[in-house]
Amino acid sequence: MILATPGPVEIPYFVRETYLRDTIHHRTPEFKEILLDTLNRFKNITKLPYNVFLSSSGTGAMEAAVINTVKNKALTVNAGKFGERWGKICKAHGIEFSEIKYDWDTPALVDDVIAAIKEDDSIDTFFIQISESAGGLRHPVEEIAAEIKLINPDIIVVADGITALGVEDLDTSNIDIVVGGSQKAFMLPPGLSMLGLSDAAVERIGSGRGFYFNLANEIKKQSEGTTAFTPATGLIIALNEVLKKLEDIGLERHYENTAKRHNAMLAAIEAIGLSIFPQNPARSMAAVYSEKAEEIRKILKNKYEINVAGGQDHMKGKLFRINNMGIIEDNKMAYILNSLELALEELGIRKYDATAVKIYSKEK
Amino acid sequence: MILATPGPVEIPYFVRETYLRDTIHHRTPEFKEILLDTLNRFKNITKLPYNVFLSSSGTGAMEAAVINTVKNKALTVNAGKFGERWGKICKAHGIEFSEIKYDWDTPALVDDVIAAIKEDDSIDTFFIQISESAGGLRHPVEEIAAEIKLINPDIIVVADGITALGVEDLDTSNIDIVVGGSQKAFMLPPGLSMLGLSDAAVERIGSGRGFYFNLANEIKKQSEGTTAFTPATGLIIALNEVLKKLEDIGLERHYENTAKRHNAMLAAIEAIGLSIFPQNPARSMAAVYSEKAEEIRKILKNKYEINVAGGQDHMKGKLFRINNMGIIEDNKMAYILNSLELALEELGIRKYDATAVKIYSKEK
Repeated sequence: MILATPGPVEIPYFVRETYLRDTIHHRTPEFKEILLDTLNRFKNITKLPYNVFLSSSGTGAMEAAVINTVKNKALTVNAGKFGERWGKICKAHGIEFSEIKYDWDTPALVDDVIAAIKEDDSIDTFFIQISESAGGLRHPVEEIAAEIKLINPDIIVVADGITALGVEDLDTSNIDIVVGGSQKAFMLPPGLSMLGLSDAAVERIGSGRGFYFNLANEIKKQSEGTTAFTPATGLIIALNEVLKKLEDIGLERHYENTAKRHNAMLAAIEAIGLSIFPQNPARSMAAVYSEKAEEIRKILKNKYEINVAGGQDHMKGKLFRINNMGIIEDNKMAYILNSLELALEELGIRKYDATAVKIYSKEK
Repeated sequence: MILATPGPVEIPYFVRETYLRDTIHHRTPEFKEILLDTLNRFKNITKLPYNVFLSSSGTGAMEAAVINTVKNKALTVNAGKFGERWGKICKAHGIEFSEIKYDWDTPALVDDVIAAIKEDDSIDTFFIQISESAGGLRHPVEEIAAEIKLINPDIIVVADGITALGVEDLDTSNIDIVVGGSQKAFMLPPGLSMLGLSDAAVERIGSGRGFYFNLANEIKKQSEGTTAFTPATGLIIALNEVLKKLEDIGLERHYENTAKRHNAMLAAIEAIGLSIFPQNPARSMAAVYSEKAEEIRKILKNKYEINVAGGQDHMKGKLFRINNMGIIEDNKMAYILNSLELALEELGIRKYDATAVKIYSKEK
């Protein structure tokens, strides 16, 4: 079975085999060296001065960002299940928040965010996804962040980069916190989340809040090469190998490969008559709108052994989503797109003539 | 290097190789089956009706237990670093608590707990370690829990079983929540914690508190074979194999092996003139008092390639701790104890005459 869901993504063999190594205790010079080296390499991904790992899924890191940074009121963008989550986290902790809501295919508008901030000067923290995976949508986070900082540099900008870190060469110069997750572009098993933080974010956090998710404790400990609690050593060791591999390829080249593959994949999908769902697609995936989404997914799974994701909530049965995160061989992507075209023929939607694979190969 | 620390423990090869398998998405029938099967097998470990896994270290599960159960006031037992943690978690969340403090070698007294509960009827939740790893100490949790329930069955009893679950055949009939951790007797990488819960605990939790650690959400989702957030799939799949292996051995026989190994190990250690630190040793480890603890650890590590744990905080340099959790071959334990005796000779403490290995072999 090819796992072609936009997270968890397939774990390459060089990652899996790190688990065959001897077990290392986390309070040893050996692990300290690996942790510091991994944090240091991760700095090239976030381009932010402070980096910490949490032993949790990405949601844990989102919660850590919320509870540690909001002092008065949060402003959140909700254009999907993950944008909605910011508000749910605020609610769970009795944190006041305003939400700007969009359809799942619609990127946030800079003007809407600026208007909300100008209207309510109690807002001190802003939360958004870089890539909102519910609809495969890319928000113009860099522009929004820059405008926010022009108006009020004290507003802390938090960006969920769970399906953006390791996918794109991000400009985080106006972003204070960026959140990542192990099972996305880092091609690891789930269970590790990462945060990159600016000086302003660390200042805002002060002595931190919460216990397991107290970021002040973790930043202090991890800067010394240790962790507040037992870390997910297996995942950190494997992340170290992934970061080395991405550096071997060259980060710039890896980002370019991902972008080129994305463009070629979208072109192939549109060439066989399917529509890309979001107005501004994120590079992490192809989110395809189709009333036959479930039939297509079934054929892909049962006949071609390819697992692609469906839609969630009100988009259930109307979307399918193909992963574009991590290292994906061209032959694998070509096989996925060719199988998709064959599925369309089986459903009587379009006669198969190998257009998808032709376009993909030409554009890639 | 033999990792002989009381957690993380060595990961057996049959566990490591589960990571070589193809990546499974967590929202699939395949994973649902594994999750439900693993939860079901885990019920034989906790003997409690509700079981949930969290993607965090054991501390995350301790925090989940605290924030979800205390309504008025907590009573905590602190006889070491982990007992101290209950109070720290309460403090971080503004939860009122009283603490009964003991020396690190001293088990809690039933009478002290009962007196504290009788004195303060705002106490609704009690927190203790079954095995307090800081001093390798076993608290008489079963007796304390039974007495508490006689006085006030509404008091929820929470037991940290991180270094007790999978070690002992626990009587949890008066315990409401028991907490476990993957890297201890379950011989997995760190990053997964487990909770077993009683009906009364679930009733107390109600709609839960917090977001990532909201136990009500997790109990509901996991009873349906899914999870609120992306789970640490790799660890759950590996835990499934561990539980099957322990069932193949026979849980009773596994517990007996652990107990016999513990008795033989303590006898061997005392036979070469060393003192066991706690008044009531936990079966998960041998915690040995020695003013030469650091010298002994250094020889074991550098000459014999054995990593044993030291003491923490005020016991630094005065304790070393040898693991007894999981599946440990007799030849490995005999090698560790023989190396320990050789280290004593090197330090001029005692002439080597193979007493440790002799006693261990005889007693085991």
